[in-house]
Amino acid sequence: MKKVAALGMLVACASFAIPAFAQFAKPEDAIKYRQSAMYVQGQHFGRIGAMANARVPFDGPTAAANADVMVAMTKIAPAGFMAGSEGGKSKPEIWKDAAKFKEMADNWAAESVKLAAAARTNNLDNLKAAFTATAGTCKACHDAYRSQ
Amino acid sequence: MKKVAALGMLVACASFAIPAFAQFAKPEDAIKYRQSAMYVQGQHFGRIGAMANARVPFDGPTAAANADVMVAMTKIAPAGFMAGSEGGKSKPEIWKDAAKFKEMADNWAAESVKLAAAARTNNLDNLKAAFTATAGTCKACHDAYRSQ
Repeated sequence: MKKVAALGMLVACASFAIPAFAQFAKPEDAIKYRQSAMYVQGQHFGRIGAMANARVPFDGPTAAANADVMVAMTKIAPAGFMAGSEGGKSKPEIWKDAAKFKEMADNWAAESVKLAAAARTNNLDNLKAAFTATAGTCKACHDAYRSQ
Repeated sequence: MKKVAALGMLVACASFAIPAFAQFAKPEDAIKYRQSAMYVQGQHFGRIGAMANARVPFDGPTAAANADVMVAMTKIAPAGFMAGSEGGKSKPEIWKDAAKFKEMADNWAAESVKLAAAARTNNLDNLKAAFTATAGTCKACHDAYRSQ
């Protein structure tokens, strides 16, 4: 029942846009915040990847629930890249190419939404395709803007 | 509009219960996961506290949006306390008193939901009362189960 109930969450949580009231006491807080949000999303994305790569049995509702958390994280993580919070693993280009960075973050968010929708089709091929597309947005942004 | 749209999120996100598909590769991952979720919620709770304590102007919709993120974190953080993940700042009593710990976590979740509802009344006194009640659930659980 919990899994079924998650069906309605995806669209509802699209209201999760936080930047308008993002307030960090200091840059370090913003860095820790974005790293926290990214870690959480990474855990859930990894679980979907385990299904996409057949390391665990495919289960559409479970994949969708994981993707829902990812979607939520895509809504809050960007606020952590506030002006003046250079540091952590973030390359300074994030703040120099703000429009490009935002575009990449938006791509990640959009593909995560599609990933959740793909999971809800309960079709493994759909999930695999959406997983690959989402992973592509992760890689593109990390290659450009994450050090190490 | 974004803030108004958030109105529907609270109930929808009540489906955010994750334990059924919680899977951490190792205990350290669970520890980092729960710490990440708690950090995110703490940032948002702090922003509400700043309003409750008149350090920043009260704004109901902003408080509600912050509380919504808190509510989401109350749904995912408990999974991070999986069996065998003793460590971090968590006292071992968490796993010895599992029922009591769950009760306290449930109280935190319930008060966070009430906090979001209070914020939506757009009445500062309501927010203050709900903030105090929520803070009480934080303190009770931390006093019992968090070291430092």
